[in-house]
Amino acid sequence: MNKIKINLPEKPYSFYLGENIFDKLDKFINKNYPAHSVFIVVDKTVYKLYKLRVDSFLKSIKNKSNKFILTASEENKSFESLKKIHSSLIKNNFGRDTLLAAIGGGIIGDLAGFAAATFMRGIPFAQVPTTLLAMVDSSVGGKTGINFSNTKNVIGAFYQPGFIYADTAFLKTLPKKEFICGVGEIVKYAFLTNKYFFNFLTRNFEKAINGDTNVLNRLIRNSVAYKGSVVAEDEKESGLRKVLNLGHTFAHALEVEQDHKIKHGEAVIFGLACALYTSKEIGILTADRFKRYFNLIREFQDLITINSFDKRKIYNIMLRDKKNLQGKVKFVLLSGIGDILLNVEVDKKVLYSSLEAGERYFQKSK
Amino acid sequence: MNKIKINLPEKPYSFYLGENIFDKLDKFINKNYPAHSVFIVVDKTVYKLYKLRVDSFLKSIKNKSNKFILTASEENKSFESLKKIHSSLIKNNFGRDTLLAAIGGGIIGDLAGFAAATFMRGIPFAQVPTTLLAMVDSSVGGKTGINFSNTKNVIGAFYQPGFIYADTAFLKTLPKKEFICGVGEIVKYAFLTNKYFFNFLTRNFEKAINGDTNVLNRLIRNSVAYKGSVVAEDEKESGLRKVLNLGHTFAHALEVEQDHKIKHGEAVIFGLACALYTSKEIGILTADRFKRYFNLIREFQDLITINSFDKRKIYNIMLRDKKNLQGKVKFVLLSGIGDILLNVEVDKKVLYSSLEAGERYFQKSK
Repeated sequence: MNKIKINLPEKPYSFYLGENIFDKLDKFINKNYPAHSVFIVVDKTVYKLYKLRVDSFLKSIKNKSNKFILTASEENKSFESLKKIHSSLIKNNFGRDTLLAAIGGGIIGDLAGFAAATFMRGIPFAQVPTTLLAMVDSSVGGKTGINFSNTKNVIGAFYQPGFIYADTAFLKTLPKKEFICGVGEIVKYAFLTNKYFFNFLTRNFEKAINGDTNVLNRLIRNSVAYKGSVVAEDEKESGLRKVLNLGHTFAHALEVEQDHKIKHGEAVIFGLACALYTSKEIGILTADRFKRYFNLIREFQDLITINSFDKRKIYNIMLRDKKNLQGKVKFVLLSGIGDILLNVEVDKKVLYSSLEAGERYFQKSK
Repeated sequence: MNKIKINLPEKPYSFYLGENIFDKLDKFINKNYPAHSVFIVVDKTVYKLYKLRVDSFLKSIKNKSNKFILTASEENKSFESLKKIHSSLIKNNFGRDTLLAAIGGGIIGDLAGFAAATFMRGIPFAQVPTTLLAMVDSSVGGKTGINFSNTKNVIGAFYQPGFIYADTAFLKTLPKKEFICGVGEIVKYAFLTNKYFFNFLTRNFEKAINGDTNVLNRLIRNSVAYKGSVVAEDEKESGLRKVLNLGHTFAHALEVEQDHKIKHGEAVIFGLACALYTSKEIGILTADRFKRYFNLIREFQDLITINSFDKRKIYNIMLRDKKNLQGKVKFVLLSGIGDILLNVEVDKKVLYSSLEAGERYFQKSK
């Protein structure tokens, strides 16, 4: 089992990574949370696939335990689901001495984390990510929240988990599409960190997409270690943490425009393509580098399809994005691997042409 | 203008106190939040009484400003109101660069604070308390939240304001009943702190109830300074901060039992009476001291009336209180002024007899 420290100044915590470690989670909790009840919010699909293991986990918890099963969809990442979780906690007399654990992907983690953050002004919380995307990204760093008024994650809180417990055995049943999404987010980390990571991913792309455990283990460790170091420096995203939004302003807007019918990871790949284009267009990324970096995006061309979209609508959605202040759309762009620029204001025209380039590129695969 | 520092380790802030200082709030914000828009959540009654001053304040804000007017009631301290505030923020394109200010009493402050805590994972927040109760207590310390599923404040967050701005001129229009409530909470602080405060309040009770500015100024300063020092030591109520709940386990349960038709401050006075009784009954408070302390409660006998209630229902509500772990009801009790005991488990029988004593006492006034 690997252990990666997330060194938040006030509240450091650990990311545990390994194959089949879920079967030791009961012991881990009984030891580290001896006086706590356990309430899990679990993805319906995960529960169906791992019913026996999840139920046996709950049975082995020393104190009271209960489960809340939810279909993971953007529509369910809502006030309605939040209230259902809270109601179930109240109805079943769960108090402050409750460890709330999210077992599932990013949607379950974000929602359950926000429920933990707001129940009785905050109860202990654990992330048990079961998708690649959640393992490399969303389970780390304490961003929790729900969608509201057609705006993604607009309601939420920074609320750090007590620990993260990632069992790569769950990935064996992960649909191909979800793998692609996870690798998409890993591509972002490759751009953000250094050439070793970038070259490793370039060389092992096929293995990663096909779920090679050793390759994934290294990619997860590298991504989590990098994200952890960024979050430890800037928990509340007042500066440095913005680097993690590379490609995400495009991605979030596209997700809303497509009415959440596109996967977050797919949108991120599209967003990274747009961010590369934009970086080249405004002259901060050389044509040579662009070509080299774009090769990694090219790997996805036959794997994902982006439906056509309304550029003006996307632009208006971006204006509403919580990262944008005073009506200006700002982007995270790059001039090299690990060489990231924050808060770059981009001309509307450049923006439109980048969106068109991304659209053209991923529609070819049709 | 008085300035009291609330020395939270990570985020110290100030409590400003003075007469007519509201008229300088625009300048204060323009200077300290030069790039921020301002969104106020204002109590409907306060807005009616001070429409010109509030509107002129908003007009003097350099950047964008907007108002959300709400009737302050426990029923409105709900998910529904929260969503209305969030909707208004989104619809009017308020971003992360928004200072959300609560102008009103504790209900408005708790609700607006929770809205600020959860909008875009937290935006700057200011408390502008207009009731005595909010000035001495609820505006300080960062407890925010809403009621849900018949449980008071069960959903919420610890979220500190950037500053608190208390203009005692607002108290001139405060209804008598609200004054009584504020003084009730001040009695709690008198029990918690020291004999000087206790004796000062005992001597000046009439003046306080009748709104004497000088007396109130000192009582507010002393209460806020004490609460600030407690919160600075234990922001998240893992230990010391529990002292502030003296009388409040009784009070909260009564409020729920009475379907929120009783004022929080009235319930607190009743709760303090019960806490004194309980302390005496279990032998930690001498009969002599009980008598002396109870004189301060006695001042309220003709001022408030408690309707009859269902003791068993109150007991069950207490069991559900978020402060109680593993099905046991624990109380904050006292053996002297400033001599407070935390987490005292109390026998059901003693509890019932204390509730009966409180009931008897405040029903005499009928």
